[in-house]
Amino acid sequence: MAPNNNLTAILYGIEDLRLENLEIPKIKDEEVLLEMDCVGICGSDVHYLVHGRIGDFIVEKPMIIGHEASGVVKKLGKNVKNLAVGDRVAIEPGVPCRMCEFCKTGKYNLCPDIVFCATPPYDGNLRRFYAHAADFCFKLPDHVTMEEGALLEPLSVGVHTCRRAEIQLGDIVMILGAGPIGLVSLLTAKEMGATKVIILDLIQSRLDVAKELGADYTIAIQKNDSEGELVKRIHSLLGAQPNKSLDCSGAEATNRLGLLATKSGGVFVIVGNGPPEVKVPMVGSVCREVDIRGVFRYANDYPAALALVASGKANVKRLVTHHFDITETADAFKASRYGTDGAIKVMIHCQPRNKNNPKPF
Amino acid sequence: MAPNNNLTAILYGIEDLRLENLEIPKIKDEEVLLEMDCVGICGSDVHYLVHGRIGDFIVEKPMIIGHEASGVVKKLGKNVKNLAVGDRVAIEPGVPCRMCEFCKTGKYNLCPDIVFCATPPYDGNLRRFYAHAADFCFKLPDHVTMEEGALLEPLSVGVHTCRRAEIQLGDIVMILGAGPIGLVSLLTAKEMGATKVIILDLIQSRLDVAKELGADYTIAIQKNDSEGELVKRIHSLLGAQPNKSLDCSGAEATNRLGLLATKSGGVFVIVGNGPPEVKVPMVGSVCREVDIRGVFRYANDYPAALALVASGKANVKRLVTHHFDITETADAFKASRYGTDGAIKVMIHCQPRNKNNPKPF
Amino acid sequence: MAPNNNLTAILYGIEDLRLENLEIPKIKDEEVLLEMDCVGICGSDVHYLVHGRIGDFIVEKPMIIGHEASGVVKKLGKNVKNLAVGDRVAIEPGVPCRMCEFCKTGKYNLCPDIVFCATPPYDGNLRRFYAHAADFCFKLPDHVTMEEGALLEPLSVGVHTCRRAEIQLGDIVMILGAGPIGLVSLLTAKEMGATKVIILDLIQSRLDVAKELGADYTIAIQKNDSEGELVKRIHSLLGAQPNKSLDCSGAEATNRLGLLATKSGGVFVIVGNGPPEVKVPMVGSVCREVDIRGVFRYANDYPAALALVASGKANVKRLVTHHFDITETADAFKASRYGTDGAIKVMIHCQPRNKNNPKPF
Amino acid sequence: MAPNNNLTAILYGIEDLRLENLEIPKIKDEEVLLEMDCVGICGSDVHYLVHGRIGDFIVEKPMIIGHEASGVVKKLGKNVKNLAVGDRVAIEPGVPCRMCEFCKTGKYNLCPDIVFCATPPYDGNLRRFYAHAADFCFKLPDHVTMEEGALLEPLSVGVHTCRRAEIQLGDIVMILGAGPIGLVSLLTAKEMGATKVIILDLIQSRLDVAKELGADYTIAIQKNDSEGELVKRIHSLLGAQPNKSLDCSGAEATNRLGLLATKSGGVFVIVGNGPPEVKVPMVGSVCREVDIRGVFRYANDYPAALALVASGKANVKRLVTHHFDITETADAFKASRYGTDGAIKVMIHCQPRNKNNPKPF
Repeated sequence: MAPNNNLTAILYGIEDLRLENLEIPKIKDEEVLLEMDCVGICGSDVHYLVHGRIGDFIVEKPMIIGHEASGVVKKLGKNVKNLAVGDRVAIEPGVPCRMCEFCKTGKYNLCPDIVFCATPPYDGNLRRFYAHAADFCFKLPDHVTMEEGALLEPLSVGVHTCRRAEIQLGDIVMILGAGPIGLVSLLTAKEMGATKVIILDLIQSRLDVAKELGADYTIAIQKNDSEGELVKRIHSLLGAQPNKSLDCSGAEATNRLGLLATKSGGVFVIVGNGPPEVKVPMVGSVCREVDIRGVFRYANDYPAALALVASGKANVKRLVTHHFDITETADAFKASRYGTDGAIKVMIHCQPRNKNNPKPF
Repeated sequence: MAPNNNLTAILYGIEDLRLENLEIPKIKDEEVLLEMDCVGICGSDVHYLVHGRIGDFIVEKPMIIGHEASGVVKKLGKNVKNLAVGDRVAIEPGVPCRMCEFCKTGKYNLCPDIVFCATPPYDGNLRRFYAHAADFCFKLPDHVTMEEGALLEPLSVGVHTCRRAEIQLGDIVMILGAGPIGLVSLLTAKEMGATKVIILDLIQSRLDVAKELGADYTIAIQKNDSEGELVKRIHSLLGAQPNKSLDCSGAEATNRLGLLATKSGGVFVIVGNGPPEVKVPMVGSVCREVDIRGVFRYANDYPAALALVASGKANVKRLVTHHFDITETADAFKASRYGTDGAIKVMIHCQPRNKNNPKPF
Repeated sequence: MAPNNNLTAILYGIEDLRLENLEIPKIKDEEVLLEMDCVGICGSDVHYLVHGRIGDFIVEKPMIIGHEASGVVKKLGKNVKNLAVGDRVAIEPGVPCRMCEFCKTGKYNLCPDIVFCATPPYDGNLRRFYAHAADFCFKLPDHVTMEEGALLEPLSVGVHTCRRAEIQLGDIVMILGAGPIGLVSLLTAKEMGATKVIILDLIQSRLDVAKELGADYTIAIQKNDSEGELVKRIHSLLGAQPNKSLDCSGAEATNRLGLLATKSGGVFVIVGNGPPEVKVPMVGSVCREVDIRGVFRYANDYPAALALVASGKANVKRLVTHHFDITETADAFKASRYGTDGAIKVMIHCQPRNKNNPKPF
Repeated sequence: MAPNNNLTAILYGIEDLRLENLEIPKIKDEEVLLEMDCVGICGSDVHYLVHGRIGDFIVEKPMIIGHEASGVVKKLGKNVKNLAVGDRVAIEPGVPCRMCEFCKTGKYNLCPDIVFCATPPYDGNLRRFYAHAADFCFKLPDHVTMEEGALLEPLSVGVHTCRRAEIQLGDIVMILGAGPIGLVSLLTAKEMGATKVIILDLIQSRLDVAKELGADYTIAIQKNDSEGELVKRIHSLLGAQPNKSLDCSGAEATNRLGLLATKSGGVFVIVGNGPPEVKVPMVGSVCREVDIRGVFRYANDYPAALALVASGKANVKRLVTHHFDITETADAFKASRYGTDGAIKVMIHCQPRNKNNPKPF
């Protein structure tokens, strides 16, 4: 490989995403060099392109984009023991400091010094070659495809969300939002033992996919639906109140719905990023002991996400609606941004498709 | 005892509390007849007197007031085995249905059919004689006074609050509000292993009591303190961020403070009743995984509250600032309502004081 | 119905099981009268027939046998609100005191005063008519059969076992014993998220059923297999160490195997009743922090067991290998006792088969 | 400091402990160089001296002894930010790999690659100078002495033990063994909310110290006490069954006692190392759901141990019965080995006593 044959997608600022050829990175002793294969586009990637920031994370200098990825090991750092050259791996995109109290207690997603792909000021991995900590690369079995490897990233958010909700056998689950995170949460909730799942969204086509993936009930919300009527409809369809609710949208309206519709003593998890301030009936949480829990990324969830896919339990492939080559990155972002043709998850290929898949996607 | 020598405090409606002589109640097979001794006044009692309602609980017919109580067993139902005539007991004031899923899973505070003293439409126990389920009466050791027995009720709220917060050894705890619930939560948090506690209130005299009861730091809030400055002051005084916060006030301002000041990955418990809607920075919960948990009364907390007092660990007596005879009920409510002379907890005596205390209060 | 048309299976003592016609029982205010439909035979039933005792539970006077049962509601006690005449129900066979600390904290299986069917001195329900607490009867949806209703009893043991093991998404599970309890634990573990399950037994035909029900790996143990070799084989087949192990046999040999083969930091649950004393390498638990947890019946597990069957997730029907009419009770016990024709679960019908099944078994 | 002025206690083999002058070690980028102050002698140190091994850990080459230690920072590795030269620190003696699943999930005590002081083949820190990972050094406030810093090591075992037992407010605790680990567990259990603690030992003088440190009841066991009688005596003294039991001895006899005396549904934690095999009434765990949990060192327990001492809640100083200079190491081991003059904890000083204590011990 030529030292600078490393096509890379760099976000220079708002609406300014460029492809450039950079040098192939050097690796440290605990790292591996990866030939990148698949990189999915996440809502946050699009958000940085359009707004240049998410909350306090601001793109202040050119930043390589991309963090939902898989690749193939090309070179090993001298202390790496868990991988071999040629291993196909899913890449967990955040590498924490390993020394703070969050890291030591297993909550490394809260590490203030975590280096996370494509969160400013850290570079992402939508490029041909990339160096990453070996212990944050997870070897894929032969029957798991590179696309599925990349999809472990959103799936890990679903796993973390359902774990935060402590989904149990027999749980009745309400999911607010049928975008990628809503759908992976649905897949995970079912496999953790949820016996009834209802999912709500504004877009019928997303609900159709949810139904296909195992949702028991769906509600297509209309913009002017009354809150109280919606709560009644949810309870009536389920024949019960959901004891676990997952807000995969984060809007004020869904925050409110979760607090109102969740059963007393239940859990309401909020994963989607919402506005800085919301007006909510907090008293519902207080007087009915509905716990509210946030989700920030994931920690120790990749192994379960991989086991879920490898065991054939989670049809995560169904989420991918569009495929593009890395040279078509601009088009890929357009499809994701505008939801062209019912786009759910858009996948970018840094290599010819199925090049690294013993079993095709 | 004459069958109708049962002086009773009845709330007929807003600002209409009367003392009347009722019949002594009959007991069921699983109940005991209690000669009432002490009954503390709770903020909710005053609220019913002044507003005639709390949320959806409305005083629609005359209701006997009082629920923080202790008494002496006078008669046993035929199936009662856990008590004997003459036993001095603390009375847990809510008797649940014992058959719904909340009751069966140990969360009987959420039982929709719970009969709870002085919550409409159910009568309370500020009277000379009262019948109660024997298994919700807790026998007091000789060295625990009848006043302390009555104080187990607010203390149980503190125990439930700290258990909901999962207070652990080494926790750094922030308490918002130094009223009775803030103070019992302080006592409990210290005994569950909190090593630093900061408490905030508007009233300096309450903070002085908190200091006396073990608070490490206090902040007297001024009405126009800025939120951001307060957060900084809290963190600076503690030399750290509190990983557990208890909102014992319930106001929008304290809801907000809890969400902003609590450490990432921590727990924020809300116990005080607030307004129906609040505007809060929920994103702080989401992005920092600060759990929000409500508190509704207590369940299975009386035994620990009693053990806490019996072992001498919790100086709950310090809360009582005023004593009145049941015939002076009107004055007692006034003291509690207006906080006369720094009133914290006002105690009403249905019997001559110390009549049933081997060791005086 | 004639008042004494109540054919009943009574255990008079060791090897002395008789069918007699008793009176139809009267019901209390919180009870329902049930026309019994299906009653499965449990290992404990056979044990009482053969040995007259299990541990400290001794058959000292004639005892009606049977506790894995379903029936149809014929009459309602006057306080019953959760059921209607004609409801088809699964019967949870133990009714606790509802007043002790175990009952109040949700662990009613440990209630010392629980009245449990066919555990001396309490009568069971292998009879035509039987009275039971209404809140311990669970209404079956139309598509769930009476046989499945009866099978909720062993399935609830599986649910309780897997809950005690805290089976999580991605768990690698070892099950020791492929009898009824091993099989229901297998079904449950898979639905709680276990991604790999290995099951061991002495009998190949049971392992074949386990394979059919979703076991990923099986090992047919030979009587003279060395402990160390077995541990190696388990780890090698799984390509990992099981982090959760379920001993559904209870023998000293399986106790030992669980302690040796379970991964450090894992959980080893023992459900089968074993000898009073065992010799075990406890140090393995101590130095590797493998938790050991026992299982005694179940508590609050029927709802999840029912949801599991109703959602179509658990093919519990596959366990039933033999059907008998109540008049053939003696033959039914023979089949169960001697494992005739690979008997796993033997079902006794108190009514003509499928009489109460809208959808046949 | 001269480069080889580093007096060091080296265990060459059974009964062969020598003092030698070694070079002062170089530090890595994440390490600090420590001038050692206090090092306590642990039972394991004595065990290596006498037997040359503990289980599979065998002294096969000369090993520096010592792991309960405190020191003063003399030099910083270039990446160290949490400490400054001159800081007085407690040293957590095990540094894990930070990359395996145990490390990432917060259970680093189970890391198979942990480098732990004075566990073969790794060197300990009974020497004048020693290099250690900066994030496993905990800065002591001025009012905490160097001796207390060293005592955080056994105290952390007590914290981990009580956390494994999930000691709660109101717990009734039985502790088996009043050696150093029994005593630190007692101190911790009280501060986590235990309201009654009973402690048993063969040696009366140790029980006297336990009483002084807050034990509510003590039992001096006689060698020929019957198991059944002891259980009765424990229950009778407590007026209840202990719901949490801590075996701080590890012998077969105490393993048995814990299983028999612990309340149904309770937790029995074993911390002491016992024989490879024990004969126990496991059925007591199974039928009464008494959980058995082992303890292996500690993880994330130093911060709470330090907070406990710094807040004045744990009088850990009371454990130290003997002081020696590092030049008297042989005598120190003798005192610890033979329990001379009621020795509980023997402390070795690598510096003149109180040299580094603003407030004397």
